[in-house]
Amino acid sequence: MARRIMKKPSEKLDQLVDSVLGPHAPPIASVAPGEVVEVETWSALERVTNPVTGPIEVEGAEAGDTLVVEILDIEMPDEGTTAIFPSFGALEGWLNLMEPRRKMCEIREGRVLYVTDRGETVELEADPFIGTIGVSPEFESITTLSPGRHGGNMDCPDVRPGNTLMLPVFRPGALLGLGDVHAVQGDGEICGVAVEIPAVVTLRLDLQKGRRIGWPRVVSPDEFMTVGSARPLEDAARQAFREMVDWMVADFGWVRDDAYMFLSLAAKSRIAQIVDPLYTAVVKLSRSYLER
Amino acid sequence: MARRIMKKPSEKLDQLVDSVLGPHAPPIASVAPGEVVEVETWSALERVTNPVTGPIEVEGAEAGDTLVVEILDIEMPDEGTTAIFPSFGALEGWLNLMEPRRKMCEIREGRVLYVTDRGETVELEADPFIGTIGVSPEFESITTLSPGRHGGNMDCPDVRPGNTLMLPVFRPGALLGLGDVHAVQGDGEICGVAVEIPAVVTLRLDLQKGRRIGWPRVVSPDEFMTVGSARPLEDAARQAFREMVDWMVADFGWVRDDAYMFLSLAAKSRIAQIVDPLYTAVVKLSRSYLER
Amino acid sequence: MARRIMKKPSEKLDQLVDSVLGPHAPPIASVAPGEVVEVETWSALERVTNPVTGPIEVEGAEAGDTLVVEILDIEMPDEGTTAIFPSFGALEGWLNLMEPRRKMCEIREGRVLYVTDRGETVELEADPFIGTIGVSPEFESITTLSPGRHGGNMDCPDVRPGNTLMLPVFRPGALLGLGDVHAVQGDGEICGVAVEIPAVVTLRLDLQKGRRIGWPRVVSPDEFMTVGSARPLEDAARQAFREMVDWMVADFGWVRDDAYMFLSLAAKSRIAQIVDPLYTAVVKLSRSYLER
Amino acid sequence: MARRIMKKPSEKLDQLVDSVLGPHAPPIASVAPGEVVEVETWSALERVTNPVTGPIEVEGAEAGDTLVVEILDIEMPDEGTTAIFPSFGALEGWLNLMEPRRKMCEIREGRVLYVTDRGETVELEADPFIGTIGVSPEFESITTLSPGRHGGNMDCPDVRPGNTLMLPVFRPGALLGLGDVHAVQGDGEICGVAVEIPAVVTLRLDLQKGRRIGWPRVVSPDEFMTVGSARPLEDAARQAFREMVDWMVADFGWVRDDAYMFLSLAAKSRIAQIVDPLYTAVVKLSRSYLER
Repeated sequence: MARRIMKKPSEKLDQLVDSVLGPHAPPIASVAPGEVVEVETWSALERVTNPVTGPIEVEGAEAGDTLVVEILDIEMPDEGTTAIFPSFGALEGWLNLMEPRRKMCEIREGRVLYVTDRGETVELEADPFIGTIGVSPEFESITTLSPGRHGGNMDCPDVRPGNTLMLPVFRPGALLGLGDVHAVQGDGEICGVAVEIPAVVTLRLDLQKGRRIGWPRVVSPDEFMTVGSARPLEDAARQAFREMVDWMVADFGWVRDDAYMFLSLAAKSRIAQIVDPLYTAVVKLSRSYLER
Repeated sequence: MARRIMKKPSEKLDQLVDSVLGPHAPPIASVAPGEVVEVETWSALERVTNPVTGPIEVEGAEAGDTLVVEILDIEMPDEGTTAIFPSFGALEGWLNLMEPRRKMCEIREGRVLYVTDRGETVELEADPFIGTIGVSPEFESITTLSPGRHGGNMDCPDVRPGNTLMLPVFRPGALLGLGDVHAVQGDGEICGVAVEIPAVVTLRLDLQKGRRIGWPRVVSPDEFMTVGSARPLEDAARQAFREMVDWMVADFGWVRDDAYMFLSLAAKSRIAQIVDPLYTAVVKLSRSYLER
Repeated sequence: MARRIMKKPSEKLDQLVDSVLGPHAPPIASVAPGEVVEVETWSALERVTNPVTGPIEVEGAEAGDTLVVEILDIEMPDEGTTAIFPSFGALEGWLNLMEPRRKMCEIREGRVLYVTDRGETVELEADPFIGTIGVSPEFESITTLSPGRHGGNMDCPDVRPGNTLMLPVFRPGALLGLGDVHAVQGDGEICGVAVEIPAVVTLRLDLQKGRRIGWPRVVSPDEFMTVGSARPLEDAARQAFREMVDWMVADFGWVRDDAYMFLSLAAKSRIAQIVDPLYTAVVKLSRSYLER
Repeated sequence: MARRIMKKPSEKLDQLVDSVLGPHAPPIASVAPGEVVEVETWSALERVTNPVTGPIEVEGAEAGDTLVVEILDIEMPDEGTTAIFPSFGALEGWLNLMEPRRKMCEIREGRVLYVTDRGETVELEADPFIGTIGVSPEFESITTLSPGRHGGNMDCPDVRPGNTLMLPVFRPGALLGLGDVHAVQGDGEICGVAVEIPAVVTLRLDLQKGRRIGWPRVVSPDEFMTVGSARPLEDAARQAFREMVDWMVADFGWVRDDAYMFLSLAAKSRIAQIVDPLYTAVVKLSRSYLER
C-alpha cells in the first residue's frame, strides 16, 4: 500500500512555504526512486495562494538529472468549484463589467455537472489532472501561480493519470510540490479557473540520472509532448517546439533541420493556459513517427 | 457538373491582383448563392507571393452578410513540396545557421511520404485543406501572406473537406480568393511551409443575408470553431474566444459571463500558425453542448 | 512661392483612396525632386478614417530609392481636438468604464491650452508634427491607421519642422500621402488621440537614387533616428535598433557587432505610440558619435 | 560620516542569498529611517549571477509602506567592462553569428572612453546609476536578473544621483538589496550589458508609513516617473502609465479619465531595457503640470 503524504490538518499554511516552489523549506517527506506515494492536495481556491503539498525529496536526485513522475490515479471529491474574478482571466478588459461569481459543480460517475444561468445542466466528461506540479528552481522561490522550466502552474490537461511527466532537476532532492487539481479544464483556462478540487494523487517517482532536459515533457501511450511557458504565447510555443527538436535529435537521431521541417508537417499543439504570469503551450508528436 | 474557375494559363500573374485580397481587381467569375464551383489553385511556392485565384464575386453579397463556404472536395496532385527559408519561420533566430532547403514529398493513396535526411520514409496521413481563403477587406488590399478578420492566410487545417467556413462580407460581391492548399500541415506550421500543392477545390458558396459575424468561423460535423489572428498569439486566442462567446450568446441564448465561464471548462484550441504577419489560433467547442 | 497641394473642397473623400496608402489611386500632384510644396491636410477626426492628402508623385522615384522629406513648416489653426473612445487606447480594458469624450484645446502663441475637468488651464508647449506620412507599399493598400516600413501612422513627434524624414520607395513615383497633424502629443499617445488639427505643411521633397533603406529614418540637427513598427513593441524597437546598426555599418564604417555593443551604451529611445495596429518605437543616436 | 555597508571580502557569495531579492536571508545591516549609508556593490559580471549587496533592513518598515531611497552619490572606479554574450541580448537571433566579446572602457574625468574595433576612441559622458535595486517580494525570492513591482533589475538610468527612488514595501524591514551599477547605458541596453562597474553608492533611506504604491517611482528635480516591467514591452508601458494615472488621481486630485487623456498629450517615455526576464519602460511627466 502506498505511503500517504500530507501536511498535518492542524498546521497553518504559510505562503513562504506552501505558495512557492523553492529551495528554502525543509522536505515534508523523502521518497526512494521507484516508490509509489499518495499525495493529498488542496484546492487552489483554499486558504493561501494556490497551495502545493511539498517539498517532497527524491533520494539521490541532483542537478542535471530528470525527475520522472508517473501519474497513476487521481481520486476526486463529489463536487468542485469554478469562479470568475473580474480582474483576472484572458478576456479581462475585453468583456467589461464582469461580476465576481462562484459556481459549484457536482462530480458524479465520471461527469462534471455544470448548471447554466438558465438552469439547464450540461454534462462534461471529467478529465482530472494536476494543474500545478514542479520542482525547486536553482536558486529562486517562484510563486505557485507561475509555470516555468521547473514545471509549476502549467495547467496542462495532459498531466493526467496514464501519462508520465518529466521535469529537470535543479536542487539536491528535486523538492517536488503539487496541487491545484482540476476535475476538468478547457484549453486556455480562459476565466483563470477550472473545476477546482482537493484530491488524492497517486504517483510513482523515479529518476533518470544524468539525463538533462530543458523543459517539462510528457509521455502518453501515443504521444511525446513538450511544455513551454513564456510571454508572449508564441515564445511558449517556441520553447516547446525547440525542446521537441532537441528530443528528436538526442534520442532518435534526427538531423536538427530535418526535425524542424518535419514538425512543420506533423506536430499537434494545444494552448494550456493564457491566464498565469507566464502562458503555457503544449507541442505533441505521435510516437509512431519516432519509435520504429 | 460544377463550373471550373481558373485564370487562363497564358496569363501572367500580377502581385497587385494575385497576391492581395482587396477591392480593386475585377472579378474573374460571378457565382450565384448555392452554386457549386471547382476552383483551380496555385501552389504557394509558385510564381508570385502566395497567389490566390479570384476575385470570385458572389451575387447579392453585401457588407454585413456572412459568406458560407462549404468545402466539398480537394483534388491533390501526386507530389508536393516543403522547404526551409532561413530568415523565415517560428524558430528563425532560435536555431542558428539553417540552410535553405527544399524537399519533394510523394502523395500516394492518401498518404504523404516524407524521406528523412537519413533516408528513411515516414508516412503521414494526408489531410488537405485550404491555407489561404478570404474576402476583400472594407478598403484595404491585404497581402495574401497575412490572415485577418477577412480570412486570408489562416493556415488552419480545419478548413478542410466536410467542414463549412463562414466569413464576414465587407464589399459588394464578397470578392473571394483562395489558394495555398496544403496536403498536410502541423500545428504552428513552424518552418513557415507545409506540403505545398496546386489543387482543384470544390466549393458550394452561399450567403446568410444580414448575419454579421466578427471573425471567421468553421462548422464541422461535431464542433463549432472560431479563428482569430493577431500578434501576439494570445491576442489571436482572445479574438477567437470572444467570438465564441458572442456566438453562444447570439445563437444559443447563453448569458455572456456564463458562456465565458463555461468555455474555461469545455473549449479546445489549436495553434494554427506562428509564422505569418499575424498569428492564428483556433478555438473549438463541441456542438453537443449547444445543440440540445 | 511654394505650390499648394490639396483635394478640391467640393470633392467627397473616399476611403478606398483617402484612408489607405497604396498603388491604386491616380496622383493628385506630381512634384520634381527638390521642389518645395505646401500640403493641406485634414484632421484625423474629420470625415473618413484618418484621411491623408495624396498620392503625391515624385518624378523619377523608383523602387530601391530613398525619398527625402524635409519638413520646413507646419501652420496650425487656433484650436485642436482631443478625445477618448472607450474601445480604443493603450489602457482600454485596464481602466474600466471610460465614457467617450471630446475636448477642444485652444492653440495660442505656440501653446496648447488644456482645461482640466476641475476647470484649471494647463499650458503645453505646442510641438506640431505629421502623425501620418508614408509612401505606397509594394503591392498592398494599407489603412492609414497603421504604420510600417512604408511610414504611415507612425505618430512620431520627431517628424517635425527642422527635421528630415527618409522613406524607402517601393512604387514608381513613391506616391506620398500625409495627414493627421498633431499640435502636441505625449509619448505613447495612450488614449489613441493627440491634439488633432487640420494644417498646412511645407515640405521639400527629394530623392536619393539607388540608396536602399529598410525602415523610416529621421535626421535632426543633433541626432540620427530610426523608426520601427511592429507588435509586440519590443519587435518595433528591435526593427529600429537593427536599422541603426545597418546605418552605422553602411554609412560610417562600423563593424557590425561593434555597432551593436556601442548602441547598448549610447542609444536613446522613445515609445512613439502603443495604440495603432502596429506599435512604434524610435531609436536615436547623437550625430557627434558618428560624424567626426 | 556615513556608515559603510558591505559583505566581508572573505565571504564567498552564495546565489541563494546574493542572486535573489527575497525574504529568506538574514539582514547584513539595519538602518534607521533617515540615515545615510554607503553601500559597496559588485559588478554584475563578477562571481555569481548579478550579485546584490543586502538584505538591508530598514527599521519599522512594514507591508503597505513606501521605501524612499535618495541617491546622493555614486563613486566609480577608473574602468568598466562591457560585453556581448551570443545567446543573450535584444538582437540575439536577429544578428546571426555574434562572437562572445569583452571590452574594457577607461573612465576618466566623468567620461567613458570606448575604443572602436577600428581603433578610434569615442567619448561618452558618464552617467552612473544603480542597475539593480529592490526590496523583498511578499513571498517569492526573485532572481536579481529580473525587474518587477519590487524594483530589481530595472536598468533604469533615472535611478541616478540627484533623484529619489520609491519602492513598495512587502516584508517587515523592506530588505533592500542593490548592485549592478552602470557607468553609462543606452536605452534598451540592447546587447544585455552596459559599462559594468563595482561602486560605492551613497543613499539616504527613509519611509513613508502607510503610503501604498503599485510600482517603483522616481522623482527628479523636474519630473515624476513611474517604472513598469512586464512582457511584452507594451504591458510594461501600460503598467507605468496606469501607475502615473493613479499618482495624479491620489496626490494631485485629477479626475481619472482626465489624467489619462492628459498623459496622451504630455507624457514622455523611454525604454529602459529589453533584455531581462521582464522588460522595463519608464513614463515621465513634468512636475510643472502637477505642482501649481
